Amino acid sequence: VRGSGQAFEATDKAIPMHSASLDTPFLAVDLDVLSSNIESMAVLCSAGGISLRPHAKTHKSIELARMQLHAGATGLTVATVGEAEIFAAAGITDLFIAYPVWAGGERGRRLRQLADDCNLRLGVDSTEAAEVLGSALRGQAVEVLVEIDCGHHRSGVSIADVAAVGRAAEASGLTVRGVFTFPGHSYNPGHRGEAVSDERIGLEAADRELAVSQVGRGVLSGGSTPTAGLGFDGLTELRPGVYAFNDAQQLELGTCGWTEVALAATTTVVSRRGHRVIVDAGSKVLGADWPNWVTGGGRVLDIPDARVVALSEHHTTVDIPDGTPVPKYGDRLRVVPNHVCAAVNLADELVIVQGELVKDRWPVAARGANT
Amino acid sequence: VRGSGQAFEATDKAIPMHSASLDTPFLAVDLDVLSSNIESMAVLCSAGGISLRPHAKTHKSIELARMQLHAGATGLTVATVGEAEIFAAAGITDLFIAYPVWAGGERGRRLRQLADDCNLRLGVDSTEAAEVLGSALRGQAVEVLVEIDCGHHRSGVSIADVAAVGRAAEASGLTVRGVFTFPGHSYNPGHRGEAVSDERIGLEAADRELAVSQVGRGVLSGGSTPTAGLGFDGLTELRPGVYAFNDAQQLELGTCGWTEVALAATTTVVSRRGHRVIVDAGSKVLGADWPNWVTGGGRVLDIPDARVVALSEHHTTVDIPDGTPVPKYGDRLRVVPNHVCAAVNLADELVIVQGELVKDRWPVAARGANT
Repeated sequence: VRGSGQAFEATDKAIPMHSASLDTPFLAVDLDVLSSNIESMAVLCSAGGISLRPHAKTHKSIELARMQLHAGATGLTVATVGEAEIFAAAGITDLFIAYPVWAGGERGRRLRQLADDCNLRLGVDSTEAAEVLGSALRGQAVEVLVEIDCGHHRSGVSIADVAAVGRAAEASGLTVRGVFTFPGHSYNPGHRGEAVSDERIGLEAADRELAVSQVGRGVLSGGSTPTAGLGFDGLTELRPGVYAFNDAQQLELGTCGWTEVALAATTTVVSRRGHRVIVDAGSKVLGADWPNWVTGGGRVLDIPDARVVALSEHHTTVDIPDGTPVPKYGDRLRVVPNHVCAAVNLADELVIVQGELVKDRWPVAARGANT
Repeated sequence: VRGSGQAFEATDKAIPMHSASLDTPFLAVDLDVLSSNIESMAVLCSAGGISLRPHAKTHKSIELARMQLHAGATGLTVATVGEAEIFAAAGITDLFIAYPVWAGGERGRRLRQLADDCNLRLGVDSTEAAEVLGSALRGQAVEVLVEIDCGHHRSGVSIADVAAVGRAAEASGLTVRGVFTFPGHSYNPGHRGEAVSDERIGLEAADRELAVSQVGRGVLSGGSTPTAGLGFDGLTELRPGVYAFNDAQQLELGTCGWTEVALAATTTVVSRRGHRVIVDAGSKVLGADWPNWVTGGGRVLDIPDARVVALSEHHTTVDIPDGTPVPKYGDRLRVVPNHVCAAVNLADELVIVQGELVKDRWPVAARGANT
């Protein structure tokens, strides 16, 4: 694998390998924690009577997607046509591109191919995009959901515009199935409950708008990892991504505990001064996400009270708390990224571990599939 | 190329291609601006009587490295053993790994191979690392520079410890050639001059420490893109990286102008509301670097007064200033990342353009080479 170092290539899968034999940094995924996270979310959605359509932008992995589907997911959510192409090529063909897809140029041809290969669902948030999409697809069977803004203020239309976009989509030959939103303001600490309420009110109002206009409806798709534990009122489908791995943001939001963190970068202490150490992973491994409400640039799985006080491309500076022995040169520390989706998208592969043993290595198959 | 969309694969290099035929997002590099940036820095260092050893972590490209060497660079700087391996395999063999390399485990074997293949220079900032390195290299000819902290407070030793580390390196069979530092506090607006002064004072003091202890000396290596224009007192070698492309941080620090920005993400407007548009590149294309002193999550090459007010993985939210027509659905905008090293490390290739024509596509050969 390009860029992963030759240690990976030398491995024979038949011989159990100790993770200590791999050069750092690498992203290690605890298989037992991962399996438990996947199963728990599937049970939660099943008990709540809603469909689970995990967002694969988090993991970009065929193997992990198959685990989610095996646990009961009805299909996958993806962010780009490029991601959809990669999962479709692996035989995973129930796909929702939860994005206001612009079908101009070459992307129109790619969407027609995908519509041939998949049960394809797309997002739309404007009459303009609906018309371009309808024109590109030339009558092929594609479902769309109208995206609404429920308070995150990114893409998505206001309730007043839902019916017009839905009608434009139907007039363009697309099959409208309902509405979707992303309650991204759930990442604002202390506002998770508000985001859940905004999401429910928005989706139900949008659904009524489609009903009044006699546009296709029925799917109310929302959700995020932080809101998943707060009930599913107003939803028929949940699209969480991060829950499979969790990350430092989820730890600090309180939506997961330390035993539910499945992914961390294994790093080596390369420099020390006083109570500070520097490890050999930085923003090119962990990502640079650092919202103003977190306590640092990630968390250290081995030392929960440590603080990541600085990140540069290949240096993570960690403050070790008083009373904790300062790690020695060459020691390994496992750093949990703030935003796991960003970290995974920087890696060519995930090292799957059980305890100290390397069980498998999974390619990040859709890494960089941004088009 | 995996993840880049099939539009790239369909290209025949013999036929000039218009960049409008490529699906967005992609990283476009203006070849004329790039050539001019590379030439200007080479002239500046030559006139200042110092060596130029560009940091290849910025571009990770064999083609671009060759342009830098052709313009007069004495060799390359890299950040990791993995990057060094990739450039060495391409025949670029004068390499300085400007990092406190920890030579434990498999990395020791990889360093021996590199030392066979290259004129290899390494960083060291502790007696422990010097001993492990010397032991791993088993007497092979490798040069080291002692890293000092000149005020950025990342890795690097204080002046008081320089001689001890240098002596330990020599005792371990390594050839000490001098000292290096990174004046990273030059990225603190208004403190560039201070960083340059700290760097000079630190390197000269460290050099004297080596001289007094009769340890090998002579190389004083420093520098960064923000400090390159402020003179080279106290330096024998400069290691700038970003200058080849420049980025939004350099624009806002005032170290480059708009006509010196060589790289931007070409994006498409996919959603609009009022004076805001959303384009189809986010932090998975641009990186998430957003220091507190910049005006946004990047800058827009086509609309200098626009502001990037939010970045998520596949959405960049842009405020269009009063009086400027709001771009239409499907329009293309070129977004300059805050930190170009992060953006390049997310891409599989760079699209090399002159005007609207695609002249070439260069693999980001050392992308993800973090070990």
